[in-house]
Parts: sequence; C-alpha cells; structure tokens
Amino acid sequence: MIDSSLVKEHTKEPKITLVGAGPGDAELITIKGVKALKAADVVLYDALVNEELLAFAPAQAVKVYVGKRSGEHSYSQDAINKLMIDYARNYGHVVRLKGGDPFVFGRGYEELEQAEACGIKTEVVPGISSAIGVPGRQRIPVTHRGKSESFWVVTGTTAAGTVSADLYTAARTNATVVVLMGLNKLEEITAIFKNEGKGFLPVAVIQNGTSADEKIAVGTVETIVEVVEENKIKAPAMMIFGEVVSLHHQFQSIREFYDVVEKE
Amino acid sequence: MIDSSLVKEHTKEPKITLVGAGPGDAELITIKGVKALKAADVVLYDALVNEELLAFAPAQAVKVYVGKRSGEHSYSQDAINKLMIDYARNYGHVVRLKGGDPFVFGRGYEELEQAEACGIKTEVVPGISSAIGVPGRQRIPVTHRGKSESFWVVTGTTAAGTVSADLYTAARTNATVVVLMGLNKLEEITAIFKNEGKGFLPVAVIQNGTSADEKIAVGTVETIVEVVEENKIKAPAMMIFGEVVSLHHQFQSIREFYDVVEKE
Repeated sequence: MIDSSLVKEHTKEPKITLVGAGPGDAELITIKGVKALKAADVVLYDALVNEELLAFAPAQAVKVYVGKRSGEHSYSQDAINKLMIDYARNYGHVVRLKGGDPFVFGRGYEELEQAEACGIKTEVVPGISSAIGVPGRQRIPVTHRGKSESFWVVTGTTAAGTVSADLYTAARTNATVVVLMGLNKLEEITAIFKNEGKGFLPVAVIQNGTSADEKIAVGTVETIVEVVEENKIKAPAMMIFGEVVSLHHQFQSIREFYDVVEKE
Repeated sequence: MIDSSLVKEHTKEPKITLVGAGPGDAELITIKGVKALKAADVVLYDALVNEELLAFAPAQAVKVYVGKRSGEHSYSQDAINKLMIDYARNYGHVVRLKGGDPFVFGRGYEELEQAEACGIKTEVVPGISSAIGVPGRQRIPVTHRGKSESFWVVTGTTAAGTVSADLYTAARTNATVVVLMGLNKLEEITAIFKNEGKGFLPVAVIQNGTSADEKIAVGTVETIVEVVEENKIKAPAMMIFGEVVSLHHQFQSIREFYDVVEKE
C-alpha cells in the first residue's frame, strides 16, 4: 500500500504567492502575508526585506536570497523568474517576499506574468508601501487638509537609469511628491524643483525607514543636499517633497530660522 | 494597604494609536495593528473598517462606531476628536481604527494634532491603502515597466465637495491615476480625461475592494460610466485610470473588440 502522505508530498501543486513585506519593521507585514509565509515550502526574498520575517516560514522551508543591492547583481530579473518557477514545480508553494508592496516599482507584475504563462497558480498579498508607511511612521502625512490634496509616487531611477520624466511634471504640481530610490540623483532632483521656483519647499529624506537604524534629514529644496551629507544618509532612502513635510517636528527650527530672516 | 493593581488601573497613562485597518479584508491589517488592538481599552472605528477586526480587542474594551457614511453624519470630525481625547483620559489606550491608511485622506493628522495638543502620547500604525492594495488584489499593478513609471493618488471629493483641481493636471500625465471616493462624480471625472483626448484609456472601478462582496467594472474612459451602471457598482468605490488597467483579465475582451473594429 502506498503511503498517502508521501504521495501528497510529491504531487504538491505549484503555487507562487507574491507577498509585500512592508517597509522594514517586521511588524508591518500583514496577517495574510504571515499566513502565506507559514504555508511556504520556499521563500525567495529581496535585499530590502527584513530577514526576521523568515522566522514565520517553516524551519524546513528553503530560504533563498535573491537581492539586488546596487552594484551587486547577484540575480538578474530573468534568473529570479526562472528560479521562482523551478522551485514552485519542484517544491510546491513559493512565497516571493518583496520589500514594500509587490506592485510599487517591484517588478512584481513581471514575476506574476511569468508564473501565469507557465500555468502556475498565483496570489498577490499587498504590503505597506514605503511611499506611505515610511513618512507615516515619521508623522508626515502624505495628504493633509490645507497642505495637500493628493500624492504622486515616482521612481528616482527608471529602467534607463535616468530621472523619470514624470518627476518634471510632478515638480510643477501641488501634489506631495514621493520619490522612491534614486538618492544618488538627489542633486539632479532638487534642481528640477528649483527650476520651478520651489527652493523653499520642505523636503525629508529617510533612510531605512521604520527600521531600528532609521535616519532622517529634514530641510528645504535649497538645503536638503547639505543636510543629507551632514546626517550621512545613504541608500536605500526615500524622499518626500511637499508642504506636509513642514508638519515634522524637525521642521520647526527651520521655520523659526526663516521667520527670523524675514523680520530682519 | 492599597491594592496596587487597582492603583495601576486608575493611573493608566492616556495614549492614542492611529491604526490603519487596511482596505476591507480583515487579514490585510498589519501585525503591529493587531498588537495595538490587543492592548486597547477603547476602539473608535470608522464606517470603512471591517468589524471582524474588533475581535482582536479585549472583550471588555469599549468599542464605539464613529463612522460617517454619506448622508449620515453621526459624528463630526470635532466630535470624534473630543471623544477620542475624553476616552484616552478616562480609559487609557484608545485605538483609533481607520479604513486604509490613517494618512491617506483619512483626516488622521488632524486627530494626531489634537491629541498632541492635549499632551497625550500618540503612535501611528500605517495600513494598506486601498489606492495600492485594492487594484493589487485584482492583479492591477499601479506601476509596470512600459505602462507606467508612477502613480498619482487623488481624492474624488475635496473638502469643498468639488473634484480636486489636481485631477485636471493628473489627467494630462502618463501617471496611473487612482481616485479614492467620489464615485458620484464619475461622469465629471471621465469628462476631464475625455478633454485630454483619453477616451480609450483603460479604467477600472472597484467597490468594496478585497471584501467578500467586492465588485469590479472594467472599461475605458468612454465606456466606464455605462459599465458601472450595468454592474450596479455603488459607493464606496475607487477608480483607477491608466494603461496598467489593460493588464486585467476582463480587459482582454475589450481589447479584442477594438482589434476587430480596427480591422473593419
């Protein structure tokens, strides 16, 4: 007689679940994300994922780091897609754990398309995007009556490696502008805002948001490059441009300085 | 001798935690949100919050519905702020549970300011915003290479009750445009996109996103008003305008229809 538990093991249905890990703090993953991890046979995780989250997966689950830190291209996107599908076919349930939300500049949809093209069952579990959650934990609201009626989330580095054309338009609007990635283009980005006469617009740059080693720089379009250097902020970092940043407690001293300057 | 447990009870420090409940599915709250609920003495919750989440709070915690459904103004924002502060002073830890993320059109910052002005300790726990999570669960990515480099989140109904001026600018850009609330302004909003020559732009309208009673309408700027009526979509609903919507499986038949029309 065949051991039915063994048969089940070998005919396990391939499945891929894209899970958003949230911005850094492990507690900012969703319950649905934790449930997916608990039911994982394999976890493929990125550089920006908090590794504490791997503890939710079964001890025997395969855990593979497929991160791409700048300058260190361990896996190409094609290689990740292939790995993901091979693991699903051989092990069953693959959780593809991605920083933030899988569909916010995460190339998550490309992974989903590949899996579906191979006839593999898929699921998507959203995550807290850094765009909202990171300023949120710093008590900077992306929207606030009288300050901003909308927010626009842009990548600092496009596929072509340039600043997104959308950023030139965004700098002209009253939207809160959130820029993910691209700290190395900060000077170029502030120049875009200066060109629109927005030198005094409040800006915050936040490194490792919601993590224990979080760092923040608060200033204006004119001053932020200097403040970032002083505070030794490095990538990965996100930037937020808009009047809402003036609500941050560190902006108070900046406001007081300008008030003094105005009175002189 | 004084019973120390009683003294502790009566000197409980007031605290207010703004918690994002996520878009509808109870499993889309974060672990941090659940922890806050478990430590709540009082929960003040909104109309768009899944009431299953209240089960995470202790049985003896006070649960107060302060929702504002359109036409039914049970509590003004001022009344909610006052209630929240009174409860914190009298009961200790108040969890202010808000749909989506507290800082995305949630007036969350106003509540935070009020609490801080009263010297009450506060914390912010981000939530999955409907803007990203609702299309995400429908496999519509807010960004995708070759389709969209950014997304812009706008409210359909401003404080003044009008369509946000930002929407006129947004309709001119290549950003994915997400409109929260304002389904009753759908005709007006589609007219804005038509004015920009975007009659064929794909659009989805999603009611009760991520909930058991979710409904979706997929079409183009030209057709969406009709599709929404046919599918009997009602508020609360969110809209997403952009090429990324063409990735939704329901868009396939629309694409095939246009292909046929083009060949004729």
